[in-house]
Amino acid sequence: MLGCHYGPKGFRDRVPRVETNGLPSGGRVLCVAMFIAILFAVPLPPQVAQRLLGGALTDGVAYSRLAELTDTIGPRLSGSAGAEAAVRWARQKFQQDGLSVHLEAVKVPHWVRGEERGEILPEPGIVGHPLVLTALGGSVGTPASGASGEVVEAHSIAEIAALGDKARGKIVFLNHTMGTKGGYGDFVGLRTRGPSEAGKVGAAAVVLRSLATASLRSPHTGTLVYDPAAPRIPAAAVSVEDAELIHRLLQRGTVRIRLWLGCRWLPDADSANVVADVRGREIPDEIVLLGAHLDSWDLATGATDDGAGVVIVMEVGRLLVKDLPRRTVRIVLYMNEENGLAGGKGYAAAHEAELTRHVAALEADSGSGRPVGVTMHAGEGGVALLKPWLGPLESLGLGEPAEGEAGGADIGPMAPAAVPFVGIQQETSHYFDTHHSAADTLDKVQPESLGKAAAAFAVVAYALAEMPQPLPRPAAQPARNRQEPAKPAPAH
Amino acid sequence: MLGCHYGPKGFRDRVPRVETNGLPSGGRVLCVAMFIAILFAVPLPPQVAQRLLGGALTDGVAYSRLAELTDTIGPRLSGSAGAEAAVRWARQKFQQDGLSVHLEAVKVPHWVRGEERGEILPEPGIVGHPLVLTALGGSVGTPASGASGEVVEAHSIAEIAALGDKARGKIVFLNHTMGTKGGYGDFVGLRTRGPSEAGKVGAAAVVLRSLATASLRSPHTGTLVYDPAAPRIPAAAVSVEDAELIHRLLQRGTVRIRLWLGCRWLPDADSANVVADVRGREIPDEIVLLGAHLDSWDLATGATDDGAGVVIVMEVGRLLVKDLPRRTVRIVLYMNEENGLAGGKGYAAAHEAELTRHVAALEADSGSGRPVGVTMHAGEGGVALLKPWLGPLESLGLGEPAEGEAGGADIGPMAPAAVPFVGIQQETSHYFDTHHSAADTLDKVQPESLGKAAAAFAVVAYALAEMPQPLPRPAAQPARNRQEPAKPAPAH
Repeated sequence: MLGCHYGPKGFRDRVPRVETNGLPSGGRVLCVAMFIAILFAVPLPPQVAQRLLGGALTDGVAYSRLAELTDTIGPRLSGSAGAEAAVRWARQKFQQDGLSVHLEAVKVPHWVRGEERGEILPEPGIVGHPLVLTALGGSVGTPASGASGEVVEAHSIAEIAALGDKARGKIVFLNHTMGTKGGYGDFVGLRTRGPSEAGKVGAAAVVLRSLATASLRSPHTGTLVYDPAAPRIPAAAVSVEDAELIHRLLQRGTVRIRLWLGCRWLPDADSANVVADVRGREIPDEIVLLGAHLDSWDLATGATDDGAGVVIVMEVGRLLVKDLPRRTVRIVLYMNEENGLAGGKGYAAAHEAELTRHVAALEADSGSGRPVGVTMHAGEGGVALLKPWLGPLESLGLGEPAEGEAGGADIGPMAPAAVPFVGIQQETSHYFDTHHSAADTLDKVQPESLGKAAAAFAVVAYALAEMPQPLPRPAAQPARNRQEPAKPAPAH
Repeated sequence: MLGCHYGPKGFRDRVPRVETNGLPSGGRVLCVAMFIAILFAVPLPPQVAQRLLGGALTDGVAYSRLAELTDTIGPRLSGSAGAEAAVRWARQKFQQDGLSVHLEAVKVPHWVRGEERGEILPEPGIVGHPLVLTALGGSVGTPASGASGEVVEAHSIAEIAALGDKARGKIVFLNHTMGTKGGYGDFVGLRTRGPSEAGKVGAAAVVLRSLATASLRSPHTGTLVYDPAAPRIPAAAVSVEDAELIHRLLQRGTVRIRLWLGCRWLPDADSANVVADVRGREIPDEIVLLGAHLDSWDLATGATDDGAGVVIVMEVGRLLVKDLPRRTVRIVLYMNEENGLAGGKGYAAAHEAELTRHVAALEADSGSGRPVGVTMHAGEGGVALLKPWLGPLESLGLGEPAEGEAGGADIGPMAPAAVPFVGIQQETSHYFDTHHSAADTLDKVQPESLGKAAAAFAVVAYALAEMPQPLPRPAAQPARNRQEPAKPAPAH
């Protein structure tokens, strides 16, 4: 049944129509050349597409592996026993699948959470309230007696700075209006940079309204980035409900908060990226890289961030070893995406010499939602080159590929080497309901959507590895700065 | 603008059409009598309706009082300082509003939660997991070293009993399939009776899948009822996510749990119902009772359960003192609905002699959603008698009143006295998302919906207190048994 969607008729319909009328002579020559190139391009053979789609959609392997990863290994924060267990688990799965797998050592930061709690202190006529909070990743802890102070509210980095002396010794409450997933990119700077900005004006601590699109009193963590030039002060996210409460109480008068954060830094730990190759049958030195991150936050089992990505790219490997494409497809399970990016930076550094032979890179780090589109950041003509190969994606409801945001935190460090980035866009309307919270658990994953996402990654990866010519390379770019994510924000 | 909905034309349309053709002579006489009665009935005067609706919909008093109650007083579990503060607060508000208010002492159970936590213990090849749990209200605590054991799953009271010796020393995990609000009535028996049933077969403790329609790792408490004939064992609700995890892990093999519950019972405490009268201008001895409960669970500020009900019925009092109806409208803010019903039982006992003069009772304990209908459990003809008075509710989108489920936990003890119960049905599709959980907070309340609910209660209360004849009384019924709630379940 799937075949009917990407059979010969479907393919003909998708051949780009070449219009020559009115074009100048040079353009006409170019068009003829493109037409010839397309005729010579052998698109994705239907029987291969059928095996890839059929395997991803019906074998159930991605979902059962996600259950195994999350239920039997659990949270995987860098430096934790869970992270190391996940490395061993992934290596074994790749071996089982017949991929050539090895570990690449990375040194990772090791931060642990400890006990944490907080409260709004009682004021005359106003009862005290417990706060549901969680330390931001990387925060320093408070003294054992806690950190306390009067609350001052700010809504932007500029407003923090403008507080000046008014923030001295106070708790800076960072409030915002995130309501949809797009708000993450708008406000994540409050989380990453807010604590140091508050430290610069002498604040005692920071509480941030969770970056979330839904809340049942559930705080969302995520990394902060301390500015070396600023005092390091403790910082925690409070649930949306608690943020609204603080905001309301500030309308009534003085609000004082006390919080206890037991989090602390340990010495850097030894860990690893897991690198597995589906060796290309004709041009094995050219590499299509698929990345996802094996680490997760510690509050939950990271089923959607990024367990889903892990099993999606593993599934591509499992399916492609049965239908080897021309080029090598490399699956990289990065370590430490969440709080340091040591894996992403480490891979780019260790493989610097061969990045020119990385013909494309994709990252699966947007959860387990169904695929909704393919985007590309490549050189001119890349979209037209790939388009004829993606007919099988019609059966998943995807339209044609388009220029657009593509990339990811882990593959970002390869941008200076002008590696073309391809993105499989996924449905993410509920992604930030649970992102970085204790509710990022397996039950949030729909097996059907996960299978469709794996199918889309498999088809695109096969196409990129099988096309006679690789994608044209884009202009080299600086590596992405985590503190200033692009919009729409990559999920990190 | 509101007037156009309940003006003269609207009233004419709503006069019940009396059909006499073909009726036997006795019936004809009855019809003529009814017709005369209706002509003499002066329905709700438009200017009064306008004042009631306008005040409830635009003054914003109900919402601002709910904010004050939840933000400045907070949780109100029986026996707590919050509960007593709420009693004082409510008395003061009634006084401000010009009602005649007094307290009626009730002795209430005093249960406190303490620290609580739990975990799934590691097994060979399976990591341990923290459990997000909360003690069921009234549970005994565990020893300081916790209660632990292997998990056995059951889905009904019958399945618990059928476990027999297999449950001895184990943790009984009560799982179910609640997905919509209707599931509450289906499965609440697992919460109330499950712990004692598990105790009877020798279990060490119980963990219950939370009774919830949404979850972000948020457990929902609620009362259990220990059977005096069974051993008292500790019981907690786990979040839906944790329940699903336990269920999945049981497919993999043995699951062991340890939980620590610091909850305990203290001596019964002195507390009170707050009783406030809008004294009727003509027949003050006849009483229309409006109830809501002032106590809440301790995990949150009880904004929807039942802070909303409290401010709704207070709003009726505030509005009616400006337009006194014939009969007395009595507002009763009951204490201890959640874990004992001392207030509801106490009121019915203390007022036993005058319950025959309680001409109707309504309870507001379904949250803050907009009103969607009026139901009634009264004697025959009650609906027809009330209907002409409810024209103003058309402007709120309500249809005609109907026979149906009406009542509530607090007014239930008046059922043996054949008090007619009237119900204002409210929109409750999200009520069980937060019910009895830490997420029952003010932000879940839409001021507009709350205002509409207060408006509906005001109109119905005025009508019941102003109609020339009171509602016919239903047959006397036994008092409702909390352990076997009617379906659809009253929200308790």
